[in-house]
Amino acid sequence: MVSLENLYNVLEETVPLYFAMILGYLSIKWWKLFTPEQCAGVNKFVSKFSIPLLSFQFIAANNPYQMNFKLILSDVLQKSLSFFIFLFAANIFCGKSVDWIITGISVSTLPNTLIVGIPLLRGMYGEEAVRLITQIVVLQSMVWYNVLLLFFEFRAQKVIRSEAATATQVTELVNIGAIEASEENQERKDTHKKCPKALSFVLNVGKKIVLNPNTYASIAGLVWSLISYRWGIKLPTITNNALHIISDGGLGMAMFSLGLFTAYQSKLIACGTRMAVLSLALRFVLGPLLMALSSYVIEMRGLLLKVAIVQAALPQGIVPFVFAKEYGVHPDILSTGIIIGMLLAVPVALAYYFLLGAIL
Amino acid sequence: MVSLENLYNVLEETVPLYFAMILGYLSIKWWKLFTPEQCAGVNKFVSKFSIPLLSFQFIAANNPYQMNFKLILSDVLQKSLSFFIFLFAANIFCGKSVDWIITGISVSTLPNTLIVGIPLLRGMYGEEAVRLITQIVVLQSMVWYNVLLLFFEFRAQKVIRSEAATATQVTELVNIGAIEASEENQERKDTHKKCPKALSFVLNVGKKIVLNPNTYASIAGLVWSLISYRWGIKLPTITNNALHIISDGGLGMAMFSLGLFTAYQSKLIACGTRMAVLSLALRFVLGPLLMALSSYVIEMRGLLLKVAIVQAALPQGIVPFVFAKEYGVHPDILSTGIIIGMLLAVPVALAYYFLLGAIL
Repeated sequence: MVSLENLYNVLEETVPLYFAMILGYLSIKWWKLFTPEQCAGVNKFVSKFSIPLLSFQFIAANNPYQMNFKLILSDVLQKSLSFFIFLFAANIFCGKSVDWIITGISVSTLPNTLIVGIPLLRGMYGEEAVRLITQIVVLQSMVWYNVLLLFFEFRAQKVIRSEAATATQVTELVNIGAIEASEENQERKDTHKKCPKALSFVLNVGKKIVLNPNTYASIAGLVWSLISYRWGIKLPTITNNALHIISDGGLGMAMFSLGLFTAYQSKLIACGTRMAVLSLALRFVLGPLLMALSSYVIEMRGLLLKVAIVQAALPQGIVPFVFAKEYGVHPDILSTGIIIGMLLAVPVALAYYFLLGAIL
Repeated sequence: MVSLENLYNVLEETVPLYFAMILGYLSIKWWKLFTPEQCAGVNKFVSKFSIPLLSFQFIAANNPYQMNFKLILSDVLQKSLSFFIFLFAANIFCGKSVDWIITGISVSTLPNTLIVGIPLLRGMYGEEAVRLITQIVVLQSMVWYNVLLLFFEFRAQKVIRSEAATATQVTELVNIGAIEASEENQERKDTHKKCPKALSFVLNVGKKIVLNPNTYASIAGLVWSLISYRWGIKLPTITNNALHIISDGGLGMAMFSLGLFTAYQSKLIACGTRMAVLSLALRFVLGPLLMALSSYVIEMRGLLLKVAIVQAALPQGIVPFVFAKEYGVHPDILSTGIIIGMLLAVPVALAYYFLLGAIL
C-alpha cells in the first residue's frame, strides 16, 4: 500500500522540477528577462554541457555487468510492438506514411526518463528503482535514439528522391525558407551523386551520431562503467568534482529551459486539440499498456514490473522533439506532448503508482 | 604543518572551478559555440538566479546569533584602513579623484569570497573555515556592496554637477555612446530638478539596491537565518530541493560565464601591464596585509587569523567589476584583476597557506 509519506516523497522530488520550469516560464512572460537569442544561449549550455554530463554520470554509475535482462527484453519488445502497430496503422490510415510511423513510435515509447524519470521514481520506489531506470536511460541514449535517427535519415532520403522528381515545380515556388531548405537538399543531393546511396545514408547517420554530444557522453559513460566495474576503479575525486560542477545544475537548467521554450510557443496546444488528445493517449495509455504487456508475458513481477510500467508513463522525452524539429516531422505534436505532458506528469504517474500499488 | 594531502584537498576543490572556466573559454575560442548575445543569456541566468540563490543558501545556513565579532571587527578595520590609505593617496597623486578611491578600495578589499573562497577554504581548513568565511560573505553582500554603491552614486552626482557646467561642450562632442550616456544623465538631471539633492541621492541608491537580486536574496537569507536559528525551524525538504535545483549549478555556471567573459576580451590585460601589476599588488599583497594587521591588533590568533588572511588574498570579486562597468569607473582594471587574479588564485592562496602554516 501507498502511504501519505510516499506521496510526499514524490512531491519532494517533482515540485522542484516544476519550480525551475515555472521560473523559466515567468522570466519570459512576466519579467521579459531573456531575448529569444539569449534563450538559445541557455538551451545550448543545457544541450551541449549539462545534459551530456548528466547522462555520463548516470551511465557511468550503472553496473553494466548486472543489467537486468528481463527489463532490456521488455523494453525491446515494447518498441517492436509499437513499430508494428504504427506500421499497420500507417498502411491503413495514412497511405504508408513514414512520418506517422516515426511520430507514433516517438510519442508512445520514448518518455523523459533522465530528467523527470529519475527524480520521480526515486521519490516513489527509492534507490533500487533509480538503478533500474538508469538501465532504461542507457538503452535510450545508446540504442533507441540512434535507431530513431536511422528512421529520420531513411525518410530524408525518400524525400530527396521524390523531390528530385519534382524539382522543377519546387523551384517555381521559391521563398526564403524554401531557398535554405533546397540549399540543404542540394548539398545532400551532391552527397548523393558522389557516393553510392547506401554509403551516403551511412555517412549521414554516422555524422549525426558523432556530432551529438549526448551520444559520445553515453559511449564514454558505458566504456568507463565497463572499466570501472571490471577492475573496481573509481574516478578520482578531482575528476568527479569537475564533472559535477557542470552537471549539478543540469536538472534545474533543463527544466528552466523547458519553461523558456513553453513561454515562447504562440499556442500551448500547437497541433490542435484533437491531435493533442490522441498523442496524450498514445503517451500515457498506449505506451504503458504495451510495456505492461511486454513485461508481463516475460514474467516480470514485483518492483521490476512496477518500475517498467511507471517509467513508460512518463511525459514526452525532449530528444525526439529535437530530432522532429530538425527533420520537420510533426514537431508541433511533440512540443505539445512535452508541455501538456509535463503538466500531467505527476498526476498520471501517481495514478499509475496507486493503481499498481493496489493491484500488484 | 601542511601535508601533501592538504594540498590535494585544495586542488580537489579548485581544479573543478578552472575546468568550468576553461570550458567556457574554449566554447568561444575553439568551438565558437555562443554568440555574444547568447553569452549574455547565460550570464543573465547566473546573475539573476544561480548566484542570488547560492548567496541565499550560504547566508541562510549561517547562524547569525553566533557571528564571530572579532572577525567582523577586523573586516571593518581592514576596509576603513584601505579607505584612509586611498583617500590620502588620491589627495597626493590624483587630485582628490573619487574614482581612484573607489577603485583602490574595490581592488584591495573586495575578493571573490562566495565562488572561489568557499571551495578553496574548505579544501584548506575544512568546514569550520567555511562557517567563518560565510560570515564574510554575509558582510560583503549586506554591507560592503551597498557602501560601494553609495560611493558610486556619490561620484555620479559629482559628475552630473560638473557636467551641467560644461553641458554645451559635451553636446558638441556627441556620438552614439555619448547620446545614450547623456540621455541617462538627462534623466538623472530631471530627477535632480524635481527632488532636493539629498532625496534624489537616496532614491537612486535605494533603487539600485532594490533592483539587485543579490541584495534581496541576502536579506531574505539573513531574515530566514534569524527565524530558523531562533526557533529551530528548518526549510521543508521540498523548498530546500527547489532552491537547490537552481543553485546547485551556480558555482559551475558562474565560472563558465567567467570563461565566456575572458574569451571575449580583446586583451587579457586590458589596463596595461604597469596598472595590472599595481592592481595585483593591491589585491594579493596590500589587501591581506591590511587584514593581517587589523586581525592581529585585535588579538585574533589560530585558525581564525589564518582564514581572515587567506580570504583577503582571494582573487578580485565579480560584483565590484559589474558596478565599475555600470558607472564607467576603470572597468578595465577590474576585468584584468578578475582574469589574471583567477589564474594566480591557487598559487597565491597556497603560498599564503604554506607561509601561515609555517609561521603561525
